[in-house]
Amino acid sequence: MADDVRMRGFKKRSPVKDALDWILKQSINLSEETISIHVATGRILAKDIVSPLNIPCFDRSMMDGYAVIASDAQGASTYNQLQLQLVGQSMPGHGTDVKVTPGTAVKIMTGAPVPKGANAVLPAENVDIDEPFIFVSESVAEGRNIGLIGEDVTCGSTLLKQGRRLRPQDIALLASIGTKEVFVLRQIRVSIIITGNEILPTGETPKGYQVVNSNGPMLESLSHRDGAVIINSRIVPDNSELIRQALLEEYDVLLITGGTSVGEEDLVPLLLSECGNLTIHGVAMRPSRSAGMGKIGEQLVFLLPGNPVACLCAYDFFAGHFIRQSSGLFSKNPYSSSLKPLKQKITSMIGRTDYARVRLSNNEVELLAISGAGILTSTTQADGFIIIPADKEGYSAGTEVEVFLYD
Amino acid sequence: MADDVRMRGFKKRSPVKDALDWILKQSINLSEETISIHVATGRILAKDIVSPLNIPCFDRSMMDGYAVIASDAQGASTYNQLQLQLVGQSMPGHGTDVKVTPGTAVKIMTGAPVPKGANAVLPAENVDIDEPFIFVSESVAEGRNIGLIGEDVTCGSTLLKQGRRLRPQDIALLASIGTKEVFVLRQIRVSIIITGNEILPTGETPKGYQVVNSNGPMLESLSHRDGAVIINSRIVPDNSELIRQALLEEYDVLLITGGTSVGEEDLVPLLLSECGNLTIHGVAMRPSRSAGMGKIGEQLVFLLPGNPVACLCAYDFFAGHFIRQSSGLFSKNPYSSSLKPLKQKITSMIGRTDYARVRLSNNEVELLAISGAGILTSTTQADGFIIIPADKEGYSAGTEVEVFLYD
Repeated sequence: MADDVRMRGFKKRSPVKDALDWILKQSINLSEETISIHVATGRILAKDIVSPLNIPCFDRSMMDGYAVIASDAQGASTYNQLQLQLVGQSMPGHGTDVKVTPGTAVKIMTGAPVPKGANAVLPAENVDIDEPFIFVSESVAEGRNIGLIGEDVTCGSTLLKQGRRLRPQDIALLASIGTKEVFVLRQIRVSIIITGNEILPTGETPKGYQVVNSNGPMLESLSHRDGAVIINSRIVPDNSELIRQALLEEYDVLLITGGTSVGEEDLVPLLLSECGNLTIHGVAMRPSRSAGMGKIGEQLVFLLPGNPVACLCAYDFFAGHFIRQSSGLFSKNPYSSSLKPLKQKITSMIGRTDYARVRLSNNEVELLAISGAGILTSTTQADGFIIIPADKEGYSAGTEVEVFLYD
Repeated sequence: MADDVRMRGFKKRSPVKDALDWILKQSINLSEETISIHVATGRILAKDIVSPLNIPCFDRSMMDGYAVIASDAQGASTYNQLQLQLVGQSMPGHGTDVKVTPGTAVKIMTGAPVPKGANAVLPAENVDIDEPFIFVSESVAEGRNIGLIGEDVTCGSTLLKQGRRLRPQDIALLASIGTKEVFVLRQIRVSIIITGNEILPTGETPKGYQVVNSNGPMLESLSHRDGAVIINSRIVPDNSELIRQALLEEYDVLLITGGTSVGEEDLVPLLLSECGNLTIHGVAMRPSRSAGMGKIGEQLVFLLPGNPVACLCAYDFFAGHFIRQSSGLFSKNPYSSSLKPLKQKITSMIGRTDYARVRLSNNEVELLAISGAGILTSTTQADGFIIIPADKEGYSAGTEVEVFLYD
């Protein structure tokens, strides 16, 4: 098995496209849970929402004004004001038992129930008042300024479909039909394992040859952004038994960094192929060439390089791609993009995808770094990145390229 | 004062541009707080970050291979393998005390410290092994595959500037220099007040003429998206004294819905102008024409219409705009946008900004609703919205318009 892994290792790297094709075919059977609508934004509905009632529940006024019979205002103008008798008022939440009969009007507020008999609401500004009379100076069409019962939501209709990612206005709609809790898919559970004997816990100061765990908090932040919940995030030494235990724990997606290459200390690929399947190991990409992915049963495992730029890149391209896909964020690129001209020529290699960090200056794209997987500041000093796909040798100066902004 | 409010009310509505110009001039003096880097993504740095150390802290190998003196490998090829003696190994976190002298090599792992004497790392694949000797089949340039001390971060350099909104990779950078907590601006504190005697708490089922609080949870969701923290969200009846109390509470931004128009029940504009300043009341926009804004001391107050579509629109255009501006998200539109052709003609009115809900069908923009501020389903059935600016009478069919996607 070990030999198999080494052979499938870096003698032949998979094209980025193959990795993405494999990811596209993967899915996680997420169970469901019931949560308060107050925390449901962004979550995926697990069943259709059918309304148990009409919204509005009653004919309501859309204006502050006067509920009338439209024909009573026919022919009214500022030169021919028509007189009606005020017989009551309808307030939001209360309404009135008074019926509007020919020659009468009921004062009404926005949102208040339209009294029986009325078939239009005259806006307040078209009326002069001399109680108990009003003087109408404009006609009104039948039905005007009345929101009819059920015109927003009809009782029994399907409002939101299973699979929908809930938006702020969906939460409002759910509330308006009396919903308190909603049945949604649970979030993707991500486990983060940082391997390496030299790794110190985040928050400690490195001494000698130690290195602080920086990929862990970065991956937590990225996974959280993509709609996942972190169930575990810890350092594991370069020890076969401890790494094997971490692989065999429960999670939906494991992000495991370090020890992913084909050297003697690179235990992870071997252990994954022993515990499950290492489908892809080594990707024709710079950085991230030691990235890999596979499965243990239904659980997905992403091998991320320990170098921080490569870790970020491999997360966004592969692991994050899958997490977003499973969180219903498939179509939502976390980075906004636009086309901008290149300031200088960029060369790349046919067959390899390059992730180049760039700056924008005077609306031009300036290359900051195309190699240097270990130089994290190349991603903090950059405004964003461009991708040079495998079928391109690079771009000449002035070419319009798609820039993805980090911020 | 009451007369003043009514006069400044809807006889003359402010252009959207005036409201946005006013918002742009507002700011909140946010105090600072110290938080864990684990929850700092998206937060604004309150002071520069200066590195107390070099990253890497030592010269490190960028490859698995052999630390050598470059001149020892000069002229090596597969036909002219050069022999070196293995004298030790350097592992991540440990290194070795062995010095590389002419004719010798030290086995080294990625990330491990480069031993004294060596000035290049030969990749493992360019070497055959027959311990205690290695046979080198390719030359290597001096400095090759070595990451020099401080090449990522130089001790004493400023890594991140005050005012920066922290990205996932910034968190990694902070961790790598030993940071546990960061000093950031506190989040905008939003208070949400839903006025109306007819309003039932979210989660209850409406009966008779009651209406459930749906704007509250929607505004919580929107404010949260825009980087604010909700310090209060409750219903207040149409009672001057209770509304006044809510206005006079502590917050950075108050979102107050309902009772914002110029009718008798519309207490909020009057009370705001009594307690502070009602700068804008009535906006030339459909929906949201009863929106308003002003200040009480340094606290910003946004009057949002009670109709849900108008409430969403007025939030996104005005209150949300300010919250994003203050959260450092000023440049980040919450909705991605693209240019698409209109399927049909859309008419609007010069002087008024329209917020039209649209669907995308066959890559064309189809108008769903341009009026109907109370029809919340027009925003849940829509894919997004388009804005028809005040200086346009509308658009002819086929015009390319910018569509903002809700999702």
